[in-house]
Amino acid sequence: MAEKKLLLLSTGGTIASAVSDEGLVPKESGEDLLKRVSNLPYDIDVKDILQLDSSNIQPEEWRKIAEKIYEYRNDYDGIVLSHGTDTMAYTASMLSFMLQNIEIPVVLTGSQVPINVVLSDAPDNLRLAFAAAATCKPGIYLAFDRKIMLGCRSVKVRTINFDAFESVNIPPVARVTSDGIVFNKDVQIHKCNKKCVLNTKINPHVAMIKLFPGFDPYLLEAMVDNGCRGIVIEGYGLGGMNYIRRNIVGAIGKLIKKDIPVVASSQCLYERSDLTKYEVGRLALLEGAISARDMTSESAITKLMWALGQGMDVHEVAQFFDTDVVGEVTIEDEK
Amino acid sequence: MAEKKLLLLSTGGTIASAVSDEGLVPKESGEDLLKRVSNLPYDIDVKDILQLDSSNIQPEEWRKIAEKIYEYRNDYDGIVLSHGTDTMAYTASMLSFMLQNIEIPVVLTGSQVPINVVLSDAPDNLRLAFAAAATCKPGIYLAFDRKIMLGCRSVKVRTINFDAFESVNIPPVARVTSDGIVFNKDVQIHKCNKKCVLNTKINPHVAMIKLFPGFDPYLLEAMVDNGCRGIVIEGYGLGGMNYIRRNIVGAIGKLIKKDIPVVASSQCLYERSDLTKYEVGRLALLEGAISARDMTSESAITKLMWALGQGMDVHEVAQFFDTDVVGEVTIEDEK
Repeated sequence: MAEKKLLLLSTGGTIASAVSDEGLVPKESGEDLLKRVSNLPYDIDVKDILQLDSSNIQPEEWRKIAEKIYEYRNDYDGIVLSHGTDTMAYTASMLSFMLQNIEIPVVLTGSQVPINVVLSDAPDNLRLAFAAAATCKPGIYLAFDRKIMLGCRSVKVRTINFDAFESVNIPPVARVTSDGIVFNKDVQIHKCNKKCVLNTKINPHVAMIKLFPGFDPYLLEAMVDNGCRGIVIEGYGLGGMNYIRRNIVGAIGKLIKKDIPVVASSQCLYERSDLTKYEVGRLALLEGAISARDMTSESAITKLMWALGQGMDVHEVAQFFDTDVVGEVTIEDEK
Repeated sequence: MAEKKLLLLSTGGTIASAVSDEGLVPKESGEDLLKRVSNLPYDIDVKDILQLDSSNIQPEEWRKIAEKIYEYRNDYDGIVLSHGTDTMAYTASMLSFMLQNIEIPVVLTGSQVPINVVLSDAPDNLRLAFAAAATCKPGIYLAFDRKIMLGCRSVKVRTINFDAFESVNIPPVARVTSDGIVFNKDVQIHKCNKKCVLNTKINPHVAMIKLFPGFDPYLLEAMVDNGCRGIVIEGYGLGGMNYIRRNIVGAIGKLIKKDIPVVASSQCLYERSDLTKYEVGRLALLEGAISARDMTSESAITKLMWALGQGMDVHEVAQFFDTDVVGEVTIEDEK
């Protein structure tokens, strides 16, 4: 069997950071990273495309990353993207929408500790990402701390320990054991049966609000009057929102009439939102709120930006959110 | 030993809900709840003070609940507050600030399934809450699924399963085993050495924003121009925020100058935010951002509302956030 040909695209992040007077800043190149991981049985090329703390990775960088992956995808069996952990789940989610039907595995990874530190998690994560890029089915993944996760289901949940990411509401695609990469047969990966089309049109003029008791719904209108074109509201529990006194539910109805889609997700990290179960949720549905179901907030906000970028109106956005596009949501039968 | 005298204050919630054409709505009284839990070795009084889905519990209800607890606290050894799960962590956090130095244990509980359903978790949770109210040191707690947690550290993380709540960044105060309530000696409870003072002055004109790549910092200004008096920003990882192109860090500086406190917390559920570690965080600190450290978002937003209600300016709010008031935050030595 011929050696797999892989590409490392480096973008900065903690993994490539070094100490400076201003705190940790990204400094090392992709070649520097690769030098610290010896004996990989792959033919690996390296390209540096960015050198940023991932807090500063934004829509402009998403486009650049997506374009590079699209450009190189036919020359390699798989691509590894080294990336800061802070916004890695957002990038993984957005790439999933921008690069639908990608024909090779693309694996994001990074580390909690810079690679030049003795006890860094970076060498392990890089090795895992290369192995995943050589092994997985086509798609966008995030590999971290012995887990390979679907990119659009991953969330950063820890700031210090090495198990920084979790796969939310579906199990990890695979785990590393003494047997190597062990795939979970319960996790279905969307089949790639069309040609990949690069589509980086997005509208970032959206907002994500975490609801709390006392929040003034007028602030939603104020944001829309100032250019906000769509909102994700992290409601309570199954997605509930208040309608007594401060009427969030009513405010949503007004926004929907102005063609501003409002997606109701849950503050609860785990398990689905379900607006059908309680009166408070049903009222929101009646006003036209779009349920995020079991999506992560990272997937919900990137899906909303991508939908608006395609020029979808509020009804088309609602239909789009009722569709499992890249594995980001579980669509159950209607009740 | 005399039988402990306990009070059940009921406020509605799933625990007291029944099926209606509009979905589940709160219907049962505190007496109804108590009837389903037999053989409790306590002398229990019951008072119904609200009958709401907790999505609709807001600052006005917080005040009412705090006043009732304050009013009855000298007549009982402990108080159980039955409450919907959706905003229970917010109520528990706010009561912690409104009722500092409360002289008895106050235990919030509820359930994922109504008490009139065969396989409900309500009877277990109620029994646990009464036992906690009879046993714990003075303070505000949340009891759920065999765990007793400090109220200001609890977060609802699951929408379906019974282990709905987690104690974030400190272990639960106690767990239930075959030995009964087993306290964790590592969890220190603030000693009650002053007289309880009821202080329900809060300013709810605040907002909680979850940062994502592409967010327009101008929307922060728009909210402030429309009456918002303080903001919690859930930043990335350790609390980082972008400053290239869309300058969130700069926008925070502008708001601080307008005497609008901005608290930087982390989207990561677990572990602390630490703005000192990365350049992106240090820049935010320089602009005057207030670190939420290892607080929950529920505690951060309620602490901010309470601080603003006391008339604190932005510097006093910053000092207040550097103080462990009721166990809500871990203050480590300066680095």
